[in-house]
Amino acid sequence: MNQWINLDKLASWRNVAQAEHVDLTKVMNGAEGTERVRKYKAPMAAGLTYSYAAKQVDDRILAVLCELAKEAQLASKFEELYNGAVINTGEKRLVLHHLTRGQLGKAVNADGKDKRAFYTEQQQKIASFAGKVHDGQILNEKGEKFNTVVQIGIGGSDLGPRAMYLALENWAKKNGCFRMEAKFISNVDPDDAAGVLGSIDPSRTIFILVSKSGTTLETLTNEAFVKDALKKAGLDASRHMIAVTSETSPLAGNSDYLDAFFMDDYIGGRYSSTSSVGGAVLSLAFGPEIFARFLNGAAEEDRLSAGDDPMQNAAMLDALIGVYERNALGYPATAVLPYSQALSRFPAHLQQLDMESNGKSVNRRGEPVSYPTGPIIFGEPGTNGQHSFYQLLHQGTDIIPLQFIGFVNNQAEVDVTIQGSTSQQKLCANVAAQIMAFACGKEDENLNKRFEGNRPSSIIIGDRLTPEALGALLAHFENKVMFQGFLWNLNSFDQEGVQLGKVLAKRVLAHETEGALKEISDLLKI
Amino acid sequence: MNQWINLDKLASWRNVAQAEHVDLTKVMNGAEGTERVRKYKAPMAAGLTYSYAAKQVDDRILAVLCELAKEAQLASKFEELYNGAVINTGEKRLVLHHLTRGQLGKAVNADGKDKRAFYTEQQQKIASFAGKVHDGQILNEKGEKFNTVVQIGIGGSDLGPRAMYLALENWAKKNGCFRMEAKFISNVDPDDAAGVLGSIDPSRTIFILVSKSGTTLETLTNEAFVKDALKKAGLDASRHMIAVTSETSPLAGNSDYLDAFFMDDYIGGRYSSTSSVGGAVLSLAFGPEIFARFLNGAAEEDRLSAGDDPMQNAAMLDALIGVYERNALGYPATAVLPYSQALSRFPAHLQQLDMESNGKSVNRRGEPVSYPTGPIIFGEPGTNGQHSFYQLLHQGTDIIPLQFIGFVNNQAEVDVTIQGSTSQQKLCANVAAQIMAFACGKEDENLNKRFEGNRPSSIIIGDRLTPEALGALLAHFENKVMFQGFLWNLNSFDQEGVQLGKVLAKRVLAHETEGALKEISDLLKI
Repeated sequence: MNQWINLDKLASWRNVAQAEHVDLTKVMNGAEGTERVRKYKAPMAAGLTYSYAAKQVDDRILAVLCELAKEAQLASKFEELYNGAVINTGEKRLVLHHLTRGQLGKAVNADGKDKRAFYTEQQQKIASFAGKVHDGQILNEKGEKFNTVVQIGIGGSDLGPRAMYLALENWAKKNGCFRMEAKFISNVDPDDAAGVLGSIDPSRTIFILVSKSGTTLETLTNEAFVKDALKKAGLDASRHMIAVTSETSPLAGNSDYLDAFFMDDYIGGRYSSTSSVGGAVLSLAFGPEIFARFLNGAAEEDRLSAGDDPMQNAAMLDALIGVYERNALGYPATAVLPYSQALSRFPAHLQQLDMESNGKSVNRRGEPVSYPTGPIIFGEPGTNGQHSFYQLLHQGTDIIPLQFIGFVNNQAEVDVTIQGSTSQQKLCANVAAQIMAFACGKEDENLNKRFEGNRPSSIIIGDRLTPEALGALLAHFENKVMFQGFLWNLNSFDQEGVQLGKVLAKRVLAHETEGALKEISDLLKI
Repeated sequence: MNQWINLDKLASWRNVAQAEHVDLTKVMNGAEGTERVRKYKAPMAAGLTYSYAAKQVDDRILAVLCELAKEAQLASKFEELYNGAVINTGEKRLVLHHLTRGQLGKAVNADGKDKRAFYTEQQQKIASFAGKVHDGQILNEKGEKFNTVVQIGIGGSDLGPRAMYLALENWAKKNGCFRMEAKFISNVDPDDAAGVLGSIDPSRTIFILVSKSGTTLETLTNEAFVKDALKKAGLDASRHMIAVTSETSPLAGNSDYLDAFFMDDYIGGRYSSTSSVGGAVLSLAFGPEIFARFLNGAAEEDRLSAGDDPMQNAAMLDALIGVYERNALGYPATAVLPYSQALSRFPAHLQQLDMESNGKSVNRRGEPVSYPTGPIIFGEPGTNGQHSFYQLLHQGTDIIPLQFIGFVNNQAEVDVTIQGSTSQQKLCANVAAQIMAFACGKEDENLNKRFEGNRPSSIIIGDRLTPEALGALLAHFENKVMFQGFLWNLNSFDQEGVQLGKVLAKRVLAHETEGALKEISDLLKI
């Protein structure tokens, strides 16, 4: 039986908090530095490697972090989760996104169904639908093939699928599996929908309406915007729209849609990229077999995450080191820095995943916690960031831990050699150089040119960003965030913090406001 | 004569640091809240308004901040800057980006030239070139008109111009001044260039190579990548490329380019959107008259920023409140949250502008400072962020000040009414609601549904995002960052923190590494 205990009540936490700090400017130099890079790495799925040599840990700190993992029962809590316990205590729900990509433990039955079978069935239904679109069994009013897919959703129905699409777009083009261009409409700002509609041919487009409840106001508003535009173009919206929703939503079994694919309450929006929410758009864009490869990468990473030895479990180790940085070293943020243009929106997805999951001040029983929880997450692709905010990372007054991601090979497999090296080599040389620059710094008599160093980073390295590697990356971070939630004793699967704004916005629209809210509404002429 | 003194040595700073804190959950309620919204606002250019009612300030704190502004000589330091002093002490350079859009003070002569005349001349040269492209005097090899422009640059040569282009793209389409589609190549990752080249017709594209020194490795590498592709397509690169560079760079007077337009060392990359760096791409995309309107908005805002009364100078006031939040209240970050999809990349531009300018630990004389300087800057457009990281902003353990931006009207001027309100009204209702939700919070017996409140925000409100409004917004933040640099006594105009990584990357590429750097390079197979 697992004990759900606050971090500061765990006996092993004291050993972590009191451990002597590691000075990277010392340990990353000379033979010790070489040894650290060789030793401090953990395997991940799809051939990825998690390297944490440049984190402020050593054998002593790793040992107490392993004790902490054991006392916090991280592995058995994950086991409890994937075997179908009510881990989402706030909403009294199971947490089953792992089942969308594999069977980690026992069969999980809920709502009278084997849930793994349910998710697999939805995936197969999507595969069949996508196949019919691709081979021309489903055509538009004029008998033409569809060539574009537009996802209408917000939050988790947007950020994850969008980041995954961008991550594989050029890979798919190179590898002959680019089937349909995908676009995304999310913002209730009408200029978002107008911009997307202005850039496509609606007559050859399938729109995917994504809303679990079928009542998300932004999404329904954008659907109405799109339907209005289709009508004005003389098109029949019901021949252009599919829905991804829950079986009990008003969008299910509705003749306004060509078809509907299902998810359920056990898949949080920010954990839904491997469910129908990501499945429909990615299967249409790249083919269902590519989506299946993406799921395989995630499932393989989940299996590694289920191990109970943190030294062989990259997600667990990453989580432990992150909590050490946040709670023992007091760092406020983490920067996610992929050296891959394809991952341009991956940091935005992780920002939601992490900040919405663990940006909480009460534990899973609703009691206040007395320690910092989720950090700020932000990031942009390198090398672009190097020419931008890295100045602060190197020489600012706060230390910000860094999460690099890099690949040996690029996706498009075209390159040029300039000054004796390819672009890809330059890219990799830059990330290697940054790790050392942050860790070791550089002395200089001119303090303006001095680098203090001792700024920790880790890097996930892969051969190439394939569908499997992307799935593994996604699952790694989902599982890391889950383990951190366990350590902080949070419920990482609800989001009550988004409710108050919704309630007040409705009041503004109903003109039921007074005081400052009325004044602000007046400034905005609502 | 201005005195350049560290913040903590200013007598008035003590009064700021010791002022009793404001509790927004109290002051933003009832009649006091109404009064605050009416009173706490400052005018900006182009009809914008800066509203700071929901910041943790009151008349007492504003009074001591005004004293601080006076003692720190903010207005006369700005005067010194725009009149041509060597404000960039590290690189011993003038700081003249304001002159690219207007004449604020005296004529500034440098390098034997009137600099205002020089920048205006470049703008006119660009206007003339763009006119010839638009009316078909400059054509491709086959005598066809160009329809696309691709900017090749990184850092300030990319983020600012890209954010400005996206901000006006749909406005231009609506207002009949969309001339050419613009794309951007920045990352040395070859997949970036390959992706852009795969999405355009190179035969009808003008490429703008942007590098002040003419030696930026990423940019030259991408140029080579593009030239290689043009050659393979049987095209003559010299008929497709222009350069934006300094007069002394190898790109100037070079027959590889159709034409060259100039900037100089007095325009930092992150301050270059109003120079030729933004001018070429924006004039080609939207026409020179639109670029001129953008400059006018910036110039008008600069004139307001030159005033010495902080209560009538939104940039100065914003800077003072930001320093109060960072140094008296101890907040680590600021989130930039535009409720406008057109501003989707504006936060990324501000992230560079702010973090690269003020992410420093030594003052302008190269002495260490003993207080926190530039915060982390991050953000995404609302309402998307509401469905993502706002959870942490509302209920996380750290307080993060917020900078909202909102407009009464949208750009595309199409909209739908759903449930009694337009999309635009919903958008505005959401930002109004968020301000109050963050400020006042909400009690609840269930602590998981409780909102602590007292989370400060400001909002810049405009009628519509026009070229003038965009120019005003840009100048506001440039000037805010400058004033904060003055308060922290930093040199906001150099970026020594980017150097070490460059040096080490060269060493990796030359295989002149040992120890940990060699090991990491081996993992990446460089």
